[in-house]
Amino acid sequence: MGLEAIFNPRSVAVIGASADERKLGHIILRNILDGGFKGKVYQVNPKRGKILGLKVYKSIGKIPEDVDLTVYVIPARFIPGPVREAVDKGVKGIVVISEGFRESGEGGRALEEELVGVVREGRIRMVEPNCQGVNNPHIGLCASWPLIKTTGCVAVVSQSGTVGAFMEIMLEEDGVGLSKFVALGNKADVDEIDMLRYLATDEETEVVALYLEGTGDGRKFMDALKECIAKKPVVILKSGRTEGGAKAVSNHTGALAGSSRVFEAALKRCEAISVESLKEFYDIAKLLSYYRLLRNNRIFIVTSSGGAGILAADMLQEAGLKQAVLSDESVERLRQVLPPYCIIGNPLDLTGSAVAEQYKMVVEATIKDGYGMYIFIFGDPVPGATEITKDVIDRYGRIVIPVFLGGVDVQAMEVEKFRKYGIPVFPTPERAIRALSHLASLQRES
Amino acid sequence: MGLEAIFNPRSVAVIGASADERKLGHIILRNILDGGFKGKVYQVNPKRGKILGLKVYKSIGKIPEDVDLTVYVIPARFIPGPVREAVDKGVKGIVVISEGFRESGEGGRALEEELVGVVREGRIRMVEPNCQGVNNPHIGLCASWPLIKTTGCVAVVSQSGTVGAFMEIMLEEDGVGLSKFVALGNKADVDEIDMLRYLATDEETEVVALYLEGTGDGRKFMDALKECIAKKPVVILKSGRTEGGAKAVSNHTGALAGSSRVFEAALKRCEAISVESLKEFYDIAKLLSYYRLLRNNRIFIVTSSGGAGILAADMLQEAGLKQAVLSDESVERLRQVLPPYCIIGNPLDLTGSAVAEQYKMVVEATIKDGYGMYIFIFGDPVPGATEITKDVIDRYGRIVIPVFLGGVDVQAMEVEKFRKYGIPVFPTPERAIRALSHLASLQRES
Repeated sequence: MGLEAIFNPRSVAVIGASADERKLGHIILRNILDGGFKGKVYQVNPKRGKILGLKVYKSIGKIPEDVDLTVYVIPARFIPGPVREAVDKGVKGIVVISEGFRESGEGGRALEEELVGVVREGRIRMVEPNCQGVNNPHIGLCASWPLIKTTGCVAVVSQSGTVGAFMEIMLEEDGVGLSKFVALGNKADVDEIDMLRYLATDEETEVVALYLEGTGDGRKFMDALKECIAKKPVVILKSGRTEGGAKAVSNHTGALAGSSRVFEAALKRCEAISVESLKEFYDIAKLLSYYRLLRNNRIFIVTSSGGAGILAADMLQEAGLKQAVLSDESVERLRQVLPPYCIIGNPLDLTGSAVAEQYKMVVEATIKDGYGMYIFIFGDPVPGATEITKDVIDRYGRIVIPVFLGGVDVQAMEVEKFRKYGIPVFPTPERAIRALSHLASLQRES
Repeated sequence: MGLEAIFNPRSVAVIGASADERKLGHIILRNILDGGFKGKVYQVNPKRGKILGLKVYKSIGKIPEDVDLTVYVIPARFIPGPVREAVDKGVKGIVVISEGFRESGEGGRALEEELVGVVREGRIRMVEPNCQGVNNPHIGLCASWPLIKTTGCVAVVSQSGTVGAFMEIMLEEDGVGLSKFVALGNKADVDEIDMLRYLATDEETEVVALYLEGTGDGRKFMDALKECIAKKPVVILKSGRTEGGAKAVSNHTGALAGSSRVFEAALKRCEAISVESLKEFYDIAKLLSYYRLLRNNRIFIVTSSGGAGILAADMLQEAGLKQAVLSDESVERLRQVLPPYCIIGNPLDLTGSAVAEQYKMVVEATIKDGYGMYIFIFGDPVPGATEITKDVIDRYGRIVIPVFLGGVDVQAMEVEKFRKYGIPVFPTPERAIRALSHLASLQRES
């Protein structure tokens, strides 16, 4: 009864594919095809004719071969029959996109219970009614929308389709990439506990980003969370923290948000990374996609912009990190290699005349001081920023976080290069440092 | 001795224009030409030949007509002579881009003092040595870089070139636009006090964004600030708030950052909007470019995404705003006009099936409740989002802040439309609400 059939099926059938481009039944089928799914794709529809070049089967039972996964995009009331047929055929995973279940009232609740009964009896797993589907870009399976194809190591598990889509879109735009996506919807069967257990051992996933509105069994959840965190970091955005938010949660999913303070304390004990806004949720997942280790919390800032360097220094202190002090030897070496107009200190201000090579010279001159992390602020058009950063990382390990701002065309080109190397680059020093502070808390706690 | 000649000159001469595309002397001249400056442009260079199609004058004195503004991009040591010549010719404003003054040591300090002596004697004003220049896109005068052409009502005054450029680039990318830009550099003559006084009466400026590392005369500064705030809101990002940051300020500009707590308290008394990060600095300037008035702090959230709505509800409470309660009459009206699957409450969840028209229906059904602001969260591809928002604003005033996320292509199109109308749209509910909370504090205080 694993989730493997849902995330790594050898074949998939869309039940309710549509020829109408605006309909979800069309979009889902098209995304599976355009995503380049490596297995077999079928579609089931009572109407005749082809859709997107695929033969139409009148029912799942008519498909002559085995089908691992079925995805339902038909009205709720028509779903139990075809799901029963799928179970009879030996299908191993079910994804129900359609809405109209528990969230819509009594009749929907009964339908949902019927559905759960069918899949439990068949001993297979089901991702939700009322959800935005699943995606595994590593095999091109985007049984969801929007179409996200960039592979990476961040898994997104979201109780909200929009929050999930927001994360997926950012991960794609920034070139960070996705390992698995699931929108949990009503959590009638598969829930966050199942997902944490599954992702703990998923080889393509190195970071888990989990958006939650509430959780059923608190103890089981914390156990699964600990199990997952023992293997890889988990970032959690939990909404319903305030009274108003909790009331909204209860309206949205009928769940109780639970006591925010108790939950927060439990997360902390588990060493989960708890965040409070979408932006932070994304920034930390992005940082963790590349940086896992902060040897110590003494941070050194190298900048071409005095102003951005000062803002970084303020943020370091406010985030509980340490502005490292230069050793006398390092000051001496820096004086020898840098032009006299550079301001030697921390931040080390290369000034607006900075060239990329100087950032590397600073690391070489100070490497013996053993800082936990360098922050390279490219606060002007600095061509070659990416190659120099990559050079330093190749030589000394992942000890540099790049920030690029104010660089217009050069910035656009360099940021594109950073993306190709998979090195996360941040748009302001504050956002980099805020994310870094969570990495620091992780090392202290473990 | 006004700043009018610097921001609204009828003619400008670049001293040290270069034929080499990579040099600042070339970039500045090109930006003035490409910016579409409406007055006369001259260039001065000891070499022969044309640059960018313009005749070369050997010295400012050789230009046969009057010149209002001269911009210097030649090495520091060569500047005092040509500035003296400019004063003699009757030039009314000086902008010195070149570095190599006070920030570079004793020799530079002497040069800077000499320069200040010359302009004071000539009774004209000078923007800085060691700066990124000035821009007034309303007359196409970009004596700075990058080239920013989008006109708007936000003035950016920055002690850091990079922080200033960051703001300009965001204002341009988001279509918010710029009224005036100045990088204050060493503040040898024109400083933040002059700028606040100038911008207070500048008709093109409705919002002032000021980045400061330190200020000389605290009392004069607060007087100028109050004078400006009486006319228009001022957002201040002050760096050097922490010990580490203050030390970096002193290294950067030689100034004392001053006591952060005292300064913060003084800003609060003046009703300035004080922020702590670049992102917030920008978000609030952007919000204020369109929204000035929050009638009351009872906020109503309309959303297509349950999750984003809950996050907004949490953030409302955390930011000290109020989640408005629906009147019984409004609930009744909403029940009549909305489909039964919509979740009536605050947030009002139209669900993923939301269509743009419903957002307007919600406002119409609840307008009698007199909320201070509606937040429209378009958390899916919702075509027509812009027109509906514009409709509501045209009819009821600026009572809607739009947020768009998770909408991929439709989002890109709609955000472009929002930009055309000059309506700021935010990428997450948290960022909109955080900015809004500053607007709320402004109304409470005034």
